[in-house]
This record gives sequence, structure tokens and C-alpha cells, in this order.
Amino acid sequence: MSQLQRITIHTHQIQATQLLLTSQQQHYLLRVLRLRDGDQFIAMDGMGEWLLAQLQGEQGKILGSLAVKMELPVSITLMMALPKGNGFDEVVRCCTELGVTCIAPVLSDRSLLNPSSQKLERWRRIASEAAEQSERTFVPTILDPVTFNTFLNKAVATHRYICEARGNYPHLKQVINNTTNDIIIAIGPEGGWTNQEIEMAVKLEFQPISLGRRILRAVTAPIVAISLIGANFE
Amino acid sequence: MSQLQRITIHTHQIQATQLLLTSQQQHYLLRVLRLRDGDQFIAMDGMGEWLLAQLQGEQGKILGSLAVKMELPVSITLMMALPKGNGFDEVVRCCTELGVTCIAPVLSDRSLLNPSSQKLERWRRIASEAAEQSERTFVPTILDPVTFNTFLNKAVATHRYICEARGNYPHLKQVINNTTNDIIIAIGPEGGWTNQEIEMAVKLEFQPISLGRRILRAVTAPIVAISLIGANFE
Repeated sequence: MSQLQRITIHTHQIQATQLLLTSQQQHYLLRVLRLRDGDQFIAMDGMGEWLLAQLQGEQGKILGSLAVKMELPVSITLMMALPKGNGFDEVVRCCTELGVTCIAPVLSDRSLLNPSSQKLERWRRIASEAAEQSERTFVPTILDPVTFNTFLNKAVATHRYICEARGNYPHLKQVINNTTNDIIIAIGPEGGWTNQEIEMAVKLEFQPISLGRRILRAVTAPIVAISLIGANFE
Repeated sequence: MSQLQRITIHTHQIQATQLLLTSQQQHYLLRVLRLRDGDQFIAMDGMGEWLLAQLQGEQGKILGSLAVKMELPVSITLMMALPKGNGFDEVVRCCTELGVTCIAPVLSDRSLLNPSSQKLERWRRIASEAAEQSERTFVPTILDPVTFNTFLNKAVATHRYICEARGNYPHLKQVINNTTNDIIIAIGPEGGWTNQEIEMAVKLEFQPISLGRRILRAVTAPIVAISLIGANFE
């Protein structure tokens, strides 16, 4: 159960035991996650209800409802520019404890280092251990690293935020209040995003937000962001 | 400026340029912090106003008002049972970035290791570096480690919370809302506080609170707590 992929649905997609997938969801399940006919996944309605579903062709079949007590009622994807050194280990560990759904490491203008496959394995092992220690029902997905642009263009979450330390943006706590669906939050590298990156994100409907007046390290910012989002839904 | 001690006052304690200190504040400044006649300190009214003051005998003289943009308008003391290994380094670093005022390492029933004086120096250096990097106006005070009981008995903050992972306690975000004064938050060691410790804290008017459903590591919990408190006041 712990390795099942999750998608967020709207309740009107449920028709008796059928789950009508949107073309974006089909693309995500079949192309991005490469699920096959008969594979199981979880459909979250963003209001605390989790359904166990099975892929049947390009649609879903609902197998039952899941009792979820330790998980947040929203899907949170952390998109994070890879920091220098081993800082990402701690990000994966803490954000897993805090209930993150998916972590997408990205290569930004200021972090061009492409991590080795051993690193990726290590992060997945850390996520698995941290999920167990924090008594979560699910292990967050750690995606393969891609460039910032690539990920930005396939980011389909309903609510999209990009954190920026400098500049007069609203605080995350002010914009998160009424969000009841899937969320992507993007955190930059040491030194922040470049202006081009911010502009591109804004074009793709990412809302720039602040995490407070003080300047946080790249490895502290995601912990703060996931803490605030999590607390909002508990 | 960065090493000045801070106390929280009520506005009615200000009479022209005089600051009328309570006996608790006198005890804290003269006995605990060992300030002497003529030493400067900061008086925060808990509503964002910071006054530079000077000790004159057992009272304060107000020298002027301080412009504070990077600091939180409340005083937050983190009282933390010392975790194993070097985990406290990261706690000091992150909580300093997040705006903590004072960190009080304590020895609890489940963490009896007394740290060396080198460790204490190291934590103070980390706090100083982190304050500079995060562009804070002030460096948090790291107190000498004492036993849980000792600190509990001299804890004079208006709002006192103790985090406990197990048990059905209200979430920190629910109780923090209307707090506009000085806060102490106590975070336990790996394995949590003992029942006796919780009982003693409750007797001394510490309110047990939760940081969410998942079980956080001892080193993650303070970062979450200070994030939530900080966001509440920004």
C-alpha cells in the first residue's frame, strides 16, 4: 500500500464505481508514472476522502475507500532546486515527516549539478525510513531530477506557489487559507531563483509568496513551507 | 546591539522615560542574566514596539525606540531537551533563522547527557552566524543547560506550551492565535517527555499541545513550532 501513487480528483469524477479520469490525469498516470492496466492508485478528493482505485484502460475503477488518519487531506508537491552538499537529505527527511506527497528535485539556473543515481536511491531510502518513523501511511514519491523548465511545464496542480525571499510578496499563510486541493510549492536554491525563472513561473500561474521577513537557508525554507501548509489542514 | 538581552513589558510599565520593572523582571535581569547598573537591554511591549533601556539600580531608564523590521513582535523561548548526537546544532541554526529569542537547552529524564562547554560555545557561534545570514537584528540567547525542573520553575513567560506527540491535545495553531506576548514552548527528547515531566509542566501552567498527527523527530519539532508561531505574527 505504501508505494501507491496518488492523484487528486473532484467528486463529480466519481460515477458509482467508475472514476472518470481527465486527459491530464490519464497523461500523468499512463505516461509520467507509467502505470499499466490493473495497477492500483489512490484518488484523493481533496476533502479528506481517499479512494483505492485501479487502472482499467484509460479510466479508473473504484475498489473502496481508505481510512487515513496520519495523512494530510491534500496532495503537496515540493518542487525544489537542488542545494549544494548533502542538504537535500535533510529536506527529504523533514518534509516526509511533515506529510509531503511528492518531492520533485529540479535543476535551476543557480544549481546545475546533476545528482548521481546513487543520490536518488539514497533520497528514496530516506523518504521510506522517515515515512515509517513518522508513522505515515504512505511514502512520498521522489521524482527523477529534471530541469526547472521541464517540470514547470508539466506541473498541473490546482494551486501553485513559488517562494521568493526578496520582494514584497504575500505570506504563504495568507494565500493558503482557502485552498482545498492539490498544491505545488517551488523553493529555490541558495541565492534564490533568477528573475527569468520567477517570470516563467508567473506566466505558468505560479503565485510568488514569502515565508516571512528573515532570509531562510534553502534547506530551511521547504520545512517551513510544508509545516505551514500542513498545519492549515489539521 | 546584537548581544542585548530582551524582556517583555506591558505598556503601563512605561512612565515618561522610566521603565518600572516587576520583581520578576528585576530577578531575571539582575540574578539570572546578571546585568549591572548601566547595562543596556531591550524592552518589548509585545505589540511590535522595542525600547532600548538601561538598568538604573533596580529600575530601567528608556533611552529610545528601536526600528525593528526583521524581528518578530513577540519573544519566543524554545526550551528543548538535548537530543543525541549533533542534532542540536541544526535546531539552533534553523530556529535562529526563524526568529527565536532564546534557546534553553534542558536535561530531561530521557536525556541526561550534560554537554561540554565547547558544545555551548559552538551553539552560540552557530546562533551568531545564523542571525547574520538570516539578516536578523539580534542574536538569540543560548542559556546554560539546566535540568528540566530548574528551568520549569523559573519560566515566567505569559504563554507556556509543552509539545507532546502522543495524546489528544489541541494543535499549536489553535491556541496561538490570540497570544500577543512572550511565549515559552517546550520540546521533548527522542521518546518524548515522561509522564512525570508532563504532569509537572501542567502544574506550572504549561498547556500541552500537538504539532500534528505525524510523529516528528525531536530535531524537526522545534523548527515546526517556531515556524507556526512566527507565521502567526507576520
